[in-house]
Amino acid sequence: MSHNTFGHLFRVTTWGESHGPAIGAIVDGCPPGIPLDESDIQVHLDRRRPGQSRFTTQRQEADAVKILSGVFNNASGKQVTTGTPIALEIQNTDQRSKDYGDIKDKYRPGHADFTYDAKYGIRDYRGGGRSSARETASRVAAGAIARKVLGDVKIRGALVQIGPHKIDRGNWNWDDIAGNPFFSPDKKAAELWADYLDKIRKDGSSIGAVVEVIAEGVPAGWGAPLYGKLDQDLAGAMMSINAVKGVEIGAGMAAAELTGEQNADEIRIGNDGKPVFLSNNAGGILGGISTGQPIVCRFAVKPTSSILAPRKTIDTHGHETEITTKGRHDPCVGIRAVPVGEAMMAIVLVDHFLRHRGQTGA
Amino acid sequence: MSHNTFGHLFRVTTWGESHGPAIGAIVDGCPPGIPLDESDIQVHLDRRRPGQSRFTTQRQEADAVKILSGVFNNASGKQVTTGTPIALEIQNTDQRSKDYGDIKDKYRPGHADFTYDAKYGIRDYRGGGRSSARETASRVAAGAIARKVLGDVKIRGALVQIGPHKIDRGNWNWDDIAGNPFFSPDKKAAELWADYLDKIRKDGSSIGAVVEVIAEGVPAGWGAPLYGKLDQDLAGAMMSINAVKGVEIGAGMAAAELTGEQNADEIRIGNDGKPVFLSNNAGGILGGISTGQPIVCRFAVKPTSSILAPRKTIDTHGHETEITTKGRHDPCVGIRAVPVGEAMMAIVLVDHFLRHRGQTGA
Amino acid sequence: MSHNTFGHLFRVTTWGESHGPAIGAIVDGCPPGIPLDESDIQVHLDRRRPGQSRFTTQRQEADAVKILSGVFNNASGKQVTTGTPIALEIQNTDQRSKDYGDIKDKYRPGHADFTYDAKYGIRDYRGGGRSSARETASRVAAGAIARKVLGDVKIRGALVQIGPHKIDRGNWNWDDIAGNPFFSPDKKAAELWADYLDKIRKDGSSIGAVVEVIAEGVPAGWGAPLYGKLDQDLAGAMMSINAVKGVEIGAGMAAAELTGEQNADEIRIGNDGKPVFLSNNAGGILGGISTGQPIVCRFAVKPTSSILAPRKTIDTHGHETEITTKGRHDPCVGIRAVPVGEAMMAIVLVDHFLRHRGQTGA
Amino acid sequence: MSHNTFGHLFRVTTWGESHGPAIGAIVDGCPPGIPLDESDIQVHLDRRRPGQSRFTTQRQEADAVKILSGVFNNASGKQVTTGTPIALEIQNTDQRSKDYGDIKDKYRPGHADFTYDAKYGIRDYRGGGRSSARETASRVAAGAIARKVLGDVKIRGALVQIGPHKIDRGNWNWDDIAGNPFFSPDKKAAELWADYLDKIRKDGSSIGAVVEVIAEGVPAGWGAPLYGKLDQDLAGAMMSINAVKGVEIGAGMAAAELTGEQNADEIRIGNDGKPVFLSNNAGGILGGISTGQPIVCRFAVKPTSSILAPRKTIDTHGHETEITTKGRHDPCVGIRAVPVGEAMMAIVLVDHFLRHRGQTGA
Repeated sequence: MSHNTFGHLFRVTTWGESHGPAIGAIVDGCPPGIPLDESDIQVHLDRRRPGQSRFTTQRQEADAVKILSGVFNNASGKQVTTGTPIALEIQNTDQRSKDYGDIKDKYRPGHADFTYDAKYGIRDYRGGGRSSARETASRVAAGAIARKVLGDVKIRGALVQIGPHKIDRGNWNWDDIAGNPFFSPDKKAAELWADYLDKIRKDGSSIGAVVEVIAEGVPAGWGAPLYGKLDQDLAGAMMSINAVKGVEIGAGMAAAELTGEQNADEIRIGNDGKPVFLSNNAGGILGGISTGQPIVCRFAVKPTSSILAPRKTIDTHGHETEITTKGRHDPCVGIRAVPVGEAMMAIVLVDHFLRHRGQTGA
Repeated sequence: MSHNTFGHLFRVTTWGESHGPAIGAIVDGCPPGIPLDESDIQVHLDRRRPGQSRFTTQRQEADAVKILSGVFNNASGKQVTTGTPIALEIQNTDQRSKDYGDIKDKYRPGHADFTYDAKYGIRDYRGGGRSSARETASRVAAGAIARKVLGDVKIRGALVQIGPHKIDRGNWNWDDIAGNPFFSPDKKAAELWADYLDKIRKDGSSIGAVVEVIAEGVPAGWGAPLYGKLDQDLAGAMMSINAVKGVEIGAGMAAAELTGEQNADEIRIGNDGKPVFLSNNAGGILGGISTGQPIVCRFAVKPTSSILAPRKTIDTHGHETEITTKGRHDPCVGIRAVPVGEAMMAIVLVDHFLRHRGQTGA
Repeated sequence: MSHNTFGHLFRVTTWGESHGPAIGAIVDGCPPGIPLDESDIQVHLDRRRPGQSRFTTQRQEADAVKILSGVFNNASGKQVTTGTPIALEIQNTDQRSKDYGDIKDKYRPGHADFTYDAKYGIRDYRGGGRSSARETASRVAAGAIARKVLGDVKIRGALVQIGPHKIDRGNWNWDDIAGNPFFSPDKKAAELWADYLDKIRKDGSSIGAVVEVIAEGVPAGWGAPLYGKLDQDLAGAMMSINAVKGVEIGAGMAAAELTGEQNADEIRIGNDGKPVFLSNNAGGILGGISTGQPIVCRFAVKPTSSILAPRKTIDTHGHETEITTKGRHDPCVGIRAVPVGEAMMAIVLVDHFLRHRGQTGA
Repeated sequence: MSHNTFGHLFRVTTWGESHGPAIGAIVDGCPPGIPLDESDIQVHLDRRRPGQSRFTTQRQEADAVKILSGVFNNASGKQVTTGTPIALEIQNTDQRSKDYGDIKDKYRPGHADFTYDAKYGIRDYRGGGRSSARETASRVAAGAIARKVLGDVKIRGALVQIGPHKIDRGNWNWDDIAGNPFFSPDKKAAELWADYLDKIRKDGSSIGAVVEVIAEGVPAGWGAPLYGKLDQDLAGAMMSINAVKGVEIGAGMAAAELTGEQNADEIRIGNDGKPVFLSNNAGGILGGISTGQPIVCRFAVKPTSSILAPRKTIDTHGHETEITTKGRHDPCVGIRAVPVGEAMMAIVLVDHFLRHRGQTGA
């Protein structure tokens, strides 16, 4: 993991700025022979795509992905991966750079404007440039390929909290996810959130959220202790998503309040003769290695920093000023972070799958 | 980050099992000319060393470190780093392997026994082998070198919560840290914790905790977006510590409940003409790059899994059984995680310092 | 160096197949503020471009490069690098895939057809797919950026041998390089080569060659011993070029015949008070670190494997057969390897420059 | 490959200076369950050990290796690898640092003294410190583990040239290797070399050599094009050995003089139904991937730079002077490079074996 590349055997390198001609990703190290065409990727991009409800930015991007390399027709005439780098490209079509003209010389609080300037001495200020959440489309595209490699591993994400409003876990129903604009597994919570977010949106404000991603079907044994632990890589992957400020595995921060008796996930033998854990405080990972239980990861997304209320800031010349961020923004970026979290889970898992297979032959 | 190596330009590789002859670390890529002798490292190892109060394991390890390479006397006769790999070695002296005889064939819930067997088909069961928290001594040793390189950056950790009992942040006093066996910055909390932990310990139970590590003096500009973000690497680093289940930067998981107005860290110009942030919800990092504010990172440590109460488990032959873990254990491993968290912060920061200097010449 | 990425701090990832829609490279880790537009790259691509004389393949490719990310106008309105990934793309325009139809089922001796099938179970046979020398256009494009970062370091390559015919080193004149279609620094040799290659070409045969690349202006101190030695990385870089079978630094293979007295590059102090080496058997590198002398690297390029004479081979079904390779090929691929060798030298040097600056602050 | 670590999935990190207390290596990523004890390693170290004939340095080092981690007894009571890092340590016992006192302030031509000072501003001058060929003991130790993992792959090296005297390839007999102090496969050449080297040695001079390493039993398919090619990694690995100035695969530099007809390794189907190549100019590698033929790699080793004849040089204060290098040195370091070359071949191959298995499941 360095600069703009993530992963070891399955390596994802992304490039592109929010308002440049295009963004994209190179997926390197993908196993050969995996059926793959653009529709396999597009379906996931469409879930992340902006402008699909009033609760996300109104920027209209088709987010149509093209595969430029790394696939070929096999003997049966089906397009499959060849083991060489897969180049993915998504054109930027609806930039409206004029919207961002007045932030050229001011640092938006909560954004990366100030730090990019501090680091590089220059920044592409149009739409946040490289630090824009637009880059997450590349992650979702790469994650779609990772999913294909993983096969039977099922990776699903959900929004479990917006502001102070958490879902009722007793209502959890995966089938409800697609039925509301929030990826909520609790349809009642979704109704409440709609009202709550409408008010936030009309106020020109924004609010944070919590995303939960669960992977089922991961066998025991994936992970590379001690410095390539599965949970370590997941934590890094999720924290690398724009606006994420906290990451939890299993019991997460609440583990601080558990006793050893409460925390221990006891083990029995199931009817199929395989180990069964009676609880999953570990979130499916012990000692950095998967247990065979579902991998459970949560992360908190801070509120969109672009808000209508004026905030105190400084300009690039070092003078005090105020800024109001207009433009088209998500009132709750956490919503569209759900498919991004799924993608990062898939990318981490497939990298560990390949590494585990490499080291152990399993 | 792969297998047992952490970092890019400043690379730490650790090795060793809890009950093998020794453990150690190779620190590679350390800048030359840094004054370094064993006492620089020992002082930090002594803070992590077990057996210093009744609240940590009674295993007695001198944890005396030896430097086997990478240093030499400079023209002034002072021992300094030479830019070549620094090999650190710590003998294991008090293993008492007999204590662990009865866990040879049983998987301790909450421990890595089951997963190491699942991954590798074999495990050194003595004291947890490679997955033992004993390995964190190597981290602390490597972190001590990282601190020397960082110079004026001040890295300090504190325990801020044990079980349900949080410190009162109004009482925060760094000078109190050394005055209690918990690294508590709130001496009143320390008194309460002593009573609370005595009960836990006498019950043969254990409890979780939260550690906070703060780095002051980091200039703006460190971090390598998008997949080597400073917060990404910190999250991974902290999650790689034994028993950690959650990591937060700045506002952390609570960012989910903030509005955009609350979350935005407004900026003014200070008397020295430099930017001053009016709050630090960002924890000193925006867009993966340091802002110049203190870097603030918290992580939750689950309770020690080795407890006296019998737990349901299975044995290596797939039969159901129970296990009671005797031996000498920390009732709250979170305490000794404080210097480990500091070490990981130092290692991440120095790696980013060198990378930033490399890419930008700053 | 892994899969399709080369370098550590300055990282080049290439993608694309010979007859896919495009090829390209991501240059990641480039320092910010370096003036860069497409013409800076195009000038080097034009030197590698096919179809410029009768001695190279007649495939007509404009090799027009586009920069898709990583640059922006600075305050002076000049386009410079921003420190974010630079995506380069070159469309494939003259593929004529029909030419390659009959090699779909046969393995061309000397080509990678057999091994790609053995490794991946599938290959894009059109024009060699990923293993085509067409990929070297991406290297040249990335190398052009590396040159910009290196500034005053002068990197020049020359063809010094075709088949049995070596240049006369007494005739070496860098200014002659551009005056013949061989990059020959000896114009007399170029005349002889023209006749010699005409015959080879008319026979439908091919011939090997030796390229020499020299970098002047590299200061002493670049290189990362012991496993990131400057000569190690150069050797790997040159050997990674298509058809290269041998790499030499300084005296090269001939060092085997030297005595210690002959080999020692004695040192004096020059008029400017700086060390002067009286010879350069070391090729500018001692102990993996640059000496300040010119870096001298040579590599042998095998003859083009695509020839008209029928060769015994097998087909993909395991039957014996023969193959004659038609299509448009270079009679001596070594010629166009000259700018590729320069590019790899530049890429290695800039990576070591950044790493050296990172570790030592120099 | 960075700094002092080599490899990706099978990673070797070495440390230690010639006259420090010890040297060593960490082998990380070794598959679990491989039988391994110290004698498996010692047998290879003994082949590289100095002082075994009058043709190598008279320094007496037992080179006794200790395994400090990463192994454990399996259920059958046999010591095997556990998948965790294997720490290897070799004490330095016969340093005689006084021998090197007078080189403290002078740069020996051909040695790394000048460049280490230029890079790091400090060097451990005792016996060459980190740049001493003593480090190659760590490589041989790590290579011994790589061999165990490779199983049936047979890796053998030979000295094929000393100064102007090449072996007669018609006399090649692997069984002769152990019967002479030169690892010569041609016993007649060995006799000639003995006389030749005696004269070199008595003159206090030194001479270069060429080593050839061959790996048999490597299946088709190993290698990671385009920037982790098998030949690329071999070239880098061999060039990283002390004093190596040239590396060849298969036909090597002589490929420059071959025509396409001569160079093409034609393919037939053997009696076992498998592909048979009629020649091996490719050295077992096409397109960076193994063909199933023997992997053939040669490298040139320059003469020992430590010679009795006075050479012009400068001192650390920038004054012109002369130096005569006394001490115990190899008149032909190429001899002891044979087991080192074998070790690097083994390390490269096992890394590619694991990576290939990881990516393709083969």
